[in-house]
Amino acid sequence: MADVKLRLAERAADLIGSIIDSSTSLLARQTHDIVRFAMGAPSDDLMPVELLDRYAAYTVPGKYGYGSTEGEPDLVEEVLKIQAEQNYSSSADRITITTGGMQGLDLACKLFIDPGDLVIVEGPTYTNGNATALSYGAALLEAPLDEDGLVVEALPDLVARAGRPPKVIYTIPNFQNPSGVTLSSHRREQLLELAARWGSVIIDDDPYGLLRFENSPIPALNEIDPGNAHIFSVRTFSKILAPGLRVGWVDADPSLRPLLINAKQAMDTCTSVPAQRTVADFLAGGNLQPHLDRVVGLYRERKQAMRVALERHFGDAVRATDPDGGFFLWVTFTDSEVDTDALFEVALAEGVAYIPGSAFSTNGHFRDALRLCFATSTPDRIDEGILRLKRAVDKAGGSR
Amino acid sequence: MADVKLRLAERAADLIGSIIDSSTSLLARQTHDIVRFAMGAPSDDLMPVELLDRYAAYTVPGKYGYGSTEGEPDLVEEVLKIQAEQNYSSSADRITITTGGMQGLDLACKLFIDPGDLVIVEGPTYTNGNATALSYGAALLEAPLDEDGLVVEALPDLVARAGRPPKVIYTIPNFQNPSGVTLSSHRREQLLELAARWGSVIIDDDPYGLLRFENSPIPALNEIDPGNAHIFSVRTFSKILAPGLRVGWVDADPSLRPLLINAKQAMDTCTSVPAQRTVADFLAGGNLQPHLDRVVGLYRERKQAMRVALERHFGDAVRATDPDGGFFLWVTFTDSEVDTDALFEVALAEGVAYIPGSAFSTNGHFRDALRLCFATSTPDRIDEGILRLKRAVDKAGGSR
Repeated sequence: MADVKLRLAERAADLIGSIIDSSTSLLARQTHDIVRFAMGAPSDDLMPVELLDRYAAYTVPGKYGYGSTEGEPDLVEEVLKIQAEQNYSSSADRITITTGGMQGLDLACKLFIDPGDLVIVEGPTYTNGNATALSYGAALLEAPLDEDGLVVEALPDLVARAGRPPKVIYTIPNFQNPSGVTLSSHRREQLLELAARWGSVIIDDDPYGLLRFENSPIPALNEIDPGNAHIFSVRTFSKILAPGLRVGWVDADPSLRPLLINAKQAMDTCTSVPAQRTVADFLAGGNLQPHLDRVVGLYRERKQAMRVALERHFGDAVRATDPDGGFFLWVTFTDSEVDTDALFEVALAEGVAYIPGSAFSTNGHFRDALRLCFATSTPDRIDEGILRLKRAVDKAGGSR
Repeated sequence: MADVKLRLAERAADLIGSIIDSSTSLLARQTHDIVRFAMGAPSDDLMPVELLDRYAAYTVPGKYGYGSTEGEPDLVEEVLKIQAEQNYSSSADRITITTGGMQGLDLACKLFIDPGDLVIVEGPTYTNGNATALSYGAALLEAPLDEDGLVVEALPDLVARAGRPPKVIYTIPNFQNPSGVTLSSHRREQLLELAARWGSVIIDDDPYGLLRFENSPIPALNEIDPGNAHIFSVRTFSKILAPGLRVGWVDADPSLRPLLINAKQAMDTCTSVPAQRTVADFLAGGNLQPHLDRVVGLYRERKQAMRVALERHFGDAVRATDPDGGFFLWVTFTDSEVDTDALFEVALAEGVAYIPGSAFSTNGHFRDALRLCFATSTPDRIDEGILRLKRAVDKAGGSR
């Protein structure tokens, strides 16, 4: 079909392609034992599958018919309760249920991004966040991260050099994907000030916020400034409950609601109603907090195991972030000759999988780094996986 | 948020808004009895809800984790079987499971439509089909329909006047939404010839094809010319099984598969896995054909009841199409003074709901027509609904 010009940005395709290829390679190698640090998703033993199956079987009138595009009313109510427990008092006219957090990002980009618009993203950031923005023609501007998250102080200079304000600033403030770092309270306030000055929308993508296992919560942007119309919050049940359900939500200014509904109508009409029912009934049954209590304890243990294993097998050869929650550690090799793109196949052959750093940048940055998901492996397996990674690095180095 | 320029085409928003408003009005009036001819969806009694609940509870490893973006492999197998029974032999590398047929349309538009591209649509056509195309900046060209579907013979002149070939031709060949008409075999062949000549993609949207209750099937475009890379087939379980599940599929040239996967990754990552599992297990249990046999008989009876009621209450005052399947009758008033936009509120007050013809056109055409869904009401209720419609027309006429 070479005669048809395809709209999807090639760069976006390449970007996601790298992740897909990794998964495909993984599948092709299922015959041998692989420690899987690649996918950012809870494994079956970290999801309340029996409860979910039970709620999935509930007989509910209208369960298999079209739902309203904005979402099932009692799921919206449960979402408001979750947010209220996070000290953020929202309202039903701000909520749109989405088909996972990914659709929240797709909606935001569809609403706000015109071809050529400047969009500030974190470097590194979530691959599909970049991809969606690119698919709407965004001009991405990669801003640096440090241990306190997005370096907000660096934005005015970047924007001055770009010569125009950003239409959108895309941030993952808590336990960022892929770096694991968290945006400090002070920087959150600075970010709100800059967005107000520039008239930018902040896409606040927070899939991991409820998975904090260390230190105290930092107020969310919408908790700092409730009702600020520049904040577009994207949330999901994928990481705190189960990604396969594909249920998330958007919390946004009520003036955007009609446009959100219209845009979502033309994407998938409504989010799977049985999936929404399963989540709503699970939540109404009071099952979320006990579930979180269980898994967050495991995640803490696993992160610590991974940091210990990195120290044991790599010592000074790597720097790793120390996240307060979420799924990911970001590992940077201090030996500048390590190329994590090239290392990938060697590591798979050694029996360990990760995501190369370059998948999180549209500029091909971060080839000296990689993302490790600590959430889905037991401490023993984590140690084994890091040992295999060390062997892979030694082999790759030896063959140079 | 007036300082943020919103991307979504305003016309698209208006278009869908009209439908949403109708639904909202309906909801607000739930206290009084309404015969609902508006929504194009099977009602609870026309869906195998007990079976679906049973399959929804099945314990399946990986059911709540991320699925592969292209879809659950055994659902793909079941889709191929359904297509094989329709005399179309496809292959797994042509299939992408989608979040309803709507996402199939969204994917097609994302892949093929650049701002300003010419897209031929049927006049009237599916509201959200128009809306999605507009949201990617399409220039829509409305082509006429008659009892044999899209008037393909009219396309060369339309294209000559437009001065450029269409990038996309969007058609609903069977029991078209909203008109109920079916594209003839001869015109299907003509359409394939024109698409080849112009290098156009045909989006073949066929949600109702398996709901034929009269006359013989007409070969689908991909049955006439299997492997033709210009045919992009959009299919769904919404009408033949249950819309709330949001499960459909796309059958397209294998060369498009990587782009489809990339585009879908950045829309919703994958279709709800429990929803896919429910459909796959329902199909594997051999339940589809018995279900179709039951509902198709009811739909035949209901269509006939609606035609009889129209004849009884309106006589020559309307012309109605006579569909061989699907859900919809298209009713045109021979009295040119009837305005179905204005009639809508009067009809609701009389206790009957429909969709005004203008919702199916971006040009405001068809204000002398309306769409009636015969599928969800019993013959008695259908007669009552048409009687109420007649009263509404008499009242609206009397008040002019």
